[in-house]
Amino acid sequence: MLTLEWKNDRVSMIDQTRLPGELVSLEAGTVDEVIDAIKRLVVRGAPAIGVAGALGVALAARLNSDPAAVHAEADRIAEARPTAVNLRWAVEQVRPFIAAGPDAVLAKALELHAADIEANRALGYRGAEWLLERIPSPVNVQTHCNAGGLACVEWGTALGVVRALHEKGSLGRVFADETRPLLQGARLTAWELDQMGIDHMVVVDGAGPTVIVRGMVDCVVVGADRIAANGDTCNKVGTFPLAMAAARAGIPFVVAAPESTIDVATPNGSAIHIEERDPAEISDWNGRRITPTATPALNLAFDVTPADLVTIIVTESRIINVAAGERP
Amino acid sequence: MLTLEWKNDRVSMIDQTRLPGELVSLEAGTVDEVIDAIKRLVVRGAPAIGVAGALGVALAARLNSDPAAVHAEADRIAEARPTAVNLRWAVEQVRPFIAAGPDAVLAKALELHAADIEANRALGYRGAEWLLERIPSPVNVQTHCNAGGLACVEWGTALGVVRALHEKGSLGRVFADETRPLLQGARLTAWELDQMGIDHMVVVDGAGPTVIVRGMVDCVVVGADRIAANGDTCNKVGTFPLAMAAARAGIPFVVAAPESTIDVATPNGSAIHIEERDPAEISDWNGRRITPTATPALNLAFDVTPADLVTIIVTESRIINVAAGERP
Repeated sequence: MLTLEWKNDRVSMIDQTRLPGELVSLEAGTVDEVIDAIKRLVVRGAPAIGVAGALGVALAARLNSDPAAVHAEADRIAEARPTAVNLRWAVEQVRPFIAAGPDAVLAKALELHAADIEANRALGYRGAEWLLERIPSPVNVQTHCNAGGLACVEWGTALGVVRALHEKGSLGRVFADETRPLLQGARLTAWELDQMGIDHMVVVDGAGPTVIVRGMVDCVVVGADRIAANGDTCNKVGTFPLAMAAARAGIPFVVAAPESTIDVATPNGSAIHIEERDPAEISDWNGRRITPTATPALNLAFDVTPADLVTIIVTESRIINVAAGERP
Repeated sequence: MLTLEWKNDRVSMIDQTRLPGELVSLEAGTVDEVIDAIKRLVVRGAPAIGVAGALGVALAARLNSDPAAVHAEADRIAEARPTAVNLRWAVEQVRPFIAAGPDAVLAKALELHAADIEANRALGYRGAEWLLERIPSPVNVQTHCNAGGLACVEWGTALGVVRALHEKGSLGRVFADETRPLLQGARLTAWELDQMGIDHMVVVDGAGPTVIVRGMVDCVVVGADRIAANGDTCNKVGTFPLAMAAARAGIPFVVAAPESTIDVATPNGSAIHIEERDPAEISDWNGRRITPTATPALNLAFDVTPADLVTIIVTESRIINVAAGERP
């Protein structure tokens, strides 16, 4: 199943806000609809929003005959969310084809779509092999948020590693943090693991570090939204606590991400713009207020795991041994 | 306002499951109702459930003329929740008075009720003074769960320190983790801070460590459910990640708790029984399923912060300088 695809001159995306209750697609026929889908997390996950952005530019090229207008739409798309570098990266990949017309833009976007699938398979198997050289089978894994097929075109990054372990018959149990406020772990990761028939349990975000230090898992595997030149890794808020716990427990903390997530123009984590999302994601639940009405919430969507807590970064082309001093 | 009191031969408790929406009391007239209130978290917080347990034994003594039956009821009350040592401690404090009749039991329970208020004020001021000797005013504080007046008879432990800072005009902003799954931070701590007119913000549990390492707070102050002889501290799950972040940030991690929370019979954290609560607290929300129906949840209610991450423990009678090697 593809998380997103080009279909009937539209960008078709699984509506992830409705999982696990309903598996339905949203068909975006305008650039505004694509941007809205990215902002509302209909489509989310760094690799997936990159491809969605590229397909969005392809859509803009179909709808506008003036290349300047398409460039302006590409700018708007690139700014739909600030933290994941893949979005801007993918938009910049297709931008040079705008001058050549809509078919050229679409061809490049579809190339990125196909490349994402391949990259994920490659990094998933590489990561699984690295783990199996160090940890006796079956391998128990802690993960956070959703870095699965739903965060990509298919297959997944962190869950790509999990999937590869599962295919090899070497996977034990997966613990998934629920990932507040939007519960991508409880809703999406659990849904994917359930679909694959993988033994899994959901815990609250505050419990992930305890699962780690109590020896219930052998490694932590997460995705990334941006990796700085020094190896500092930005991912969904709640990742950093797992990295601190993994260091205390002496187990590997593995970042699984495509090369497009590495941003050598960002020197370190403190240079990454952390998206602050709508406080109502924390204060309200299905339209019901949780907090007192006068209580403000600060909705930091991401955190930074300093390089000193990262064991390796695995991409489609290499292992970056961060713990041994290697840098992207 | 008192969180719980003896009224008309009943145990009257603010129903904390209904805050912040409604401020109503539940009047327990039977031992079963007291036990149910403790299990359902109508009354929660280690000091408060201790006093509720003692008043529950007073109620049992009123309702049963046979001392053996009262002792059996006391046993049932002591086992209502397993982790907080205060519950068993308080029950054992009143137990010797069962032979002397119901008035003697009630008098002792009311003594514990009064002592809790005094202990909290004493530890709150002591903790605030310790902080003000080290941190320039205004002091910004990160806390977790609810260790406020609602977790005690009144005033609070961690929030007792916050309250004392506020009274001295030396408090900045308080960041409160929402505290999944039951949102004691978002509901109860926010409500108390709002009532006091204290500047505060709620964050998701995964974001607390980021608030700390980004320098948004000067210290972490939390309560405790049980403190082992070696200083390992058991508190609401999600506390341990804050302690790791505080150590990285080089800011004090302060445990505020009455002496009754210290259990020298427990050698260290690994000997503490961590309560596992109903998985539905994680999987369901207001009766709606969040996770896929086949997905199990592991609901660890507490975690253990190892003594090496604790700066001080402040009680009604002393500062235990854990970072300097002192032990309870």
